[in-house]
Amino acid sequence: MGLLERFENGDQVALARIISRVENRRTGYQDILARLYAHAGRAQRIGLTGPPGAGKSSLVFRLGELLSASGKKVGIIAVDPTSPFTGGALLGDRIRMQDLSLDPNIFIRSMATRGSTGGLAEATRDTTMVMDAFGFDLVLIETVGVGQVELDIARACDSVVVVFVPESGDAVQAMKAGLMEIADIYCLNKADRDGAERLVLELQSVLGLRQRTNNWEYPIIQTQAINNIGIDDLWQAIKNHREFCQSDTSPEDRQKERIANDLLTIVRGKVDRRLRSVLRDSETFEKVVADILAGSTNPYSAAERLVAELSTALTS
Amino acid sequence: MGLLERFENGDQVALARIISRVENRRTGYQDILARLYAHAGRAQRIGLTGPPGAGKSSLVFRLGELLSASGKKVGIIAVDPTSPFTGGALLGDRIRMQDLSLDPNIFIRSMATRGSTGGLAEATRDTTMVMDAFGFDLVLIETVGVGQVELDIARACDSVVVVFVPESGDAVQAMKAGLMEIADIYCLNKADRDGAERLVLELQSVLGLRQRTNNWEYPIIQTQAINNIGIDDLWQAIKNHREFCQSDTSPEDRQKERIANDLLTIVRGKVDRRLRSVLRDSETFEKVVADILAGSTNPYSAAERLVAELSTALTS
Repeated sequence: MGLLERFENGDQVALARIISRVENRRTGYQDILARLYAHAGRAQRIGLTGPPGAGKSSLVFRLGELLSASGKKVGIIAVDPTSPFTGGALLGDRIRMQDLSLDPNIFIRSMATRGSTGGLAEATRDTTMVMDAFGFDLVLIETVGVGQVELDIARACDSVVVVFVPESGDAVQAMKAGLMEIADIYCLNKADRDGAERLVLELQSVLGLRQRTNNWEYPIIQTQAINNIGIDDLWQAIKNHREFCQSDTSPEDRQKERIANDLLTIVRGKVDRRLRSVLRDSETFEKVVADILAGSTNPYSAAERLVAELSTALTS
Repeated sequence: MGLLERFENGDQVALARIISRVENRRTGYQDILARLYAHAGRAQRIGLTGPPGAGKSSLVFRLGELLSASGKKVGIIAVDPTSPFTGGALLGDRIRMQDLSLDPNIFIRSMATRGSTGGLAEATRDTTMVMDAFGFDLVLIETVGVGQVELDIARACDSVVVVFVPESGDAVQAMKAGLMEIADIYCLNKADRDGAERLVLELQSVLGLRQRTNNWEYPIIQTQAINNIGIDDLWQAIKNHREFCQSDTSPEDRQKERIANDLLTIVRGKVDRRLRSVLRDSETFEKVVADILAGSTNPYSAAERLVAELSTALTS
């Protein structure tokens, strides 16, 4: 039996192999994506992000347990940070995650760090689609931090949970500019620790300032992942957010929106790759730089020439 | 006398008007940029970034005083955060900044927040270029936080100073994934406060892990901006970084590199704007989405059709 056939029969080994092919851009990966796309579009995609040490892995673990117990099939993607700084999850977390992976309703995948940040977001999106096509009800995507990759990944999710801990009072300040804005749901983990109440108040005051572009009331859920407390509430908030998002659009419109977004992302990726190669390799580029250096033109006027060059490359 | 002539004669009122035109993309702004570009390329561009409350404005203020006293002309750009959350600098800071603006060697500009984040980074880059062309020796750019705008702005700088305070032990954790990587120089401000020593040690251990792609030794400078302590050291570190960067390339190669980067950024911006309008408005796009919805094609195969459509739009 072929790999795709085994995949379609629900074989998790085939799923793992296909993800590896897609992740490593091995020959034929695009044909695989093209074939699987028709099966995708049903899974709920949930991003969990926040600073290192906030307990995201533990929350994912608890959510996985809860969902599996109620018969849901759950794919989990742990995106390693691209930063060489971050040490990743504690060993204990990893071990518990591995226990979870023995559950037949659960499939866990860790995305390899790669130099090209654009590549990581793209590979994560493709892996999510493959898991979706495989038939998971939910895909949970755990990312660390506040880089562009995390924002790109979060944008491709249906709901984004930003995880805090009481100790991150200052982190809230630091993250105001970036991470807070992508949250649909705020989760205060380790809520039994000192400072939890103060941080909830701080968050509430910040949320009061958040411009409401819609009528969604941003919930702040308090959890203690390690003691398995508050996980129901978190799951309820995620369900509420899904219902909220579905309340004013038809299923067909949502499908169209998803397709349009996928299409835009894929086209943009293609154009950007060609742009880089055309610009960096072209004689025109070299010549234009020399002309600007000589003072006979400037980048603003010369850009048009290069856009024309790119368009030739796109048609060829 | 025309606006550009007055600009070229060193009239700061003309400079302010030209920046407004460029920032607001008023008719003719591209001609202005095209004309001024030939005069740019001499200013040293220094980015200062870090969490709100770290004292970046105070540091910029002290650096401005120091540099002006030694006869340097300094342009300062304060980039307001795009986030509706962040309140910006304290009133006291703003007042002191305004005092500084009476110094004839100093020109201060605050960039307006705008919805489109791409727009803010672009406008900041253009404003930097205009200040450079005006004849400033240095342009100091103050940004808040860790969003994509800040990263884009930082990338366009010659040296990036990331500012911390002793209280931001957790923030260091939170920012590992993003902000730390863009730093050329680490500045621990409010270094007289409790926890300074611990944070320096923490930073040093993190820096030990930082992959050295070059031989630059990342300095950690301790300052107390409010007491005017350590500003000399910070300036010395910035000068060292400039010398380090210039040590292995010729001035012509550096010019070429700068031109190539400017050109790439401008072309990419142009292509991306057309991509959005072509894709979103085109009948082909609508049709392709409908075809994918009907299952007769998929985004991976259909993307090529849209790339062809884009190329037609680029040539027209």
